[in-house]
Amino acid sequence: MTIQIIPVDGIGEVHAGDDLVEFIQSAVSASGGSLRPGDVVVIAQKVVSKAEGRIRRLAEITPSERALRLAAELDKDARIVQCVLDEARAVLRAERGVIITETHHGFVCANSGVDRSNVGLPDAVVLLPLDPDASAAGLREAFRARTGTDVAVVVTDTFGRAWREGQVNVAIGISGLAPFVRYAGLRDPDGYELRVTEIALGDEIAAAAELVMGKLDRRPAAIVRGITSDGTPGGAREYVRPAARDMFR
Amino acid sequence: MTIQIIPVDGIGEVHAGDDLVEFIQSAVSASGGSLRPGDVVVIAQKVVSKAEGRIRRLAEITPSERALRLAAELDKDARIVQCVLDEARAVLRAERGVIITETHHGFVCANSGVDRSNVGLPDAVVLLPLDPDASAAGLREAFRARTGTDVAVVVTDTFGRAWREGQVNVAIGISGLAPFVRYAGLRDPDGYELRVTEIALGDEIAAAAELVMGKLDRRPAAIVRGITSDGTPGGAREYVRPAARDMFR
Repeated sequence: MTIQIIPVDGIGEVHAGDDLVEFIQSAVSASGGSLRPGDVVVIAQKVVSKAEGRIRRLAEITPSERALRLAAELDKDARIVQCVLDEARAVLRAERGVIITETHHGFVCANSGVDRSNVGLPDAVVLLPLDPDASAAGLREAFRARTGTDVAVVVTDTFGRAWREGQVNVAIGISGLAPFVRYAGLRDPDGYELRVTEIALGDEIAAAAELVMGKLDRRPAAIVRGITSDGTPGGAREYVRPAARDMFR
Repeated sequence: MTIQIIPVDGIGEVHAGDDLVEFIQSAVSASGGSLRPGDVVVIAQKVVSKAEGRIRRLAEITPSERALRLAAELDKDARIVQCVLDEARAVLRAERGVIITETHHGFVCANSGVDRSNVGLPDAVVLLPLDPDASAAGLREAFRARTGTDVAVVVTDTFGRAWREGQVNVAIGISGLAPFVRYAGLRDPDGYELRVTEIALGDEIAAAAELVMGKLDRRPAAIVRGITSDGTPGGAREYVRPAARDMFR
């Protein structure tokens, strides 16, 4: 079955307390479309965080000694470094102007996901949602309440990777979808076990949606239509590989 | 614009020397479709490698001392370990039954991409193409010659990642497409530089295509329709981060 990746145009600037589901639903309706059962609504973390008020004003941040030292080493704004440290449970690397952290959620990414671009306010930064799976679940419930339609929701951010240049969209919050397509133990026609054991379905949906979600044209949502998955629904927290099982940190 | 991910059904078992472009073109036609200019034809490495004869029979492999030692440590077939070593320019990790290597192309992945499943022959393994960008370019040229249509070609494999559980499809060969969407230096409406600097477009297309390319149902190709990119065309070799610039190996 053909899968469609449908851009959601016409979502305006989002502020703390805004009803994101109303914004998305209105934008979909205005384009003559409608949500269908089984659609995956993919939403960029930036607007989820803004609606949730996950914003810090730099003027209200007093950098610690550690933040001042790191900021000097990396040639960064010490208030932003403090914010990155506040959002991290571990700093994995800090070199070449980059801080790679493990966030409190367990995600490994640059600057704990703290972002100064597209904030909509000067001298402020946007943080990742406190619990992106809960954000996704809340949005899903709100879509159901408003439209009567059972959609899945994926909240995404754009992360760099080890070993490969370039960044890709990944899922940081999931509701109503199986995070994995599991092949473990399945065998090919000759009886050999498959090498690929579990596909990160939510991450692939996030990457697919990014193809229509530009960074500059304020299109923070997309609908991915046609996904079929019979796996066990779960959260993006299942993507977090515990440090003890990770060979590369 | 809506992007479509169209499965290509009906490609049979592929053998060395087979004309993959004929197989795909026939399958597309049989389903009543046709290739259009700008389509991205996404093809799994497995069938590209098989068509190119990148297969080794285990009976013809004599493991070295190093392969025997590693195989004993990891509880693996020493002939396969030898094959993994032959395809690698460096072994990054060998523990918990897993060998993570840097292939001769520079890709970091499990077992140098050597795969025993879905080979179509007993006691044989499939290797990655020698030069997947060249494979993609050859396939693209063959599509143009056969159909008169200028498509892009992405050759994919399914890789694990650092830090995150699950595997995703990535691009290992690209022709006719810009590997990156670049935002470096661009600014948001408030004048702040964007945090995301370059999106790995080919990897996102590979991930999107995987959503219709099952591992067990022999669907090794998909068409991604509606991609627009004005970046500089290049190869998947541009995704290889040089070891000296990589903080995690």
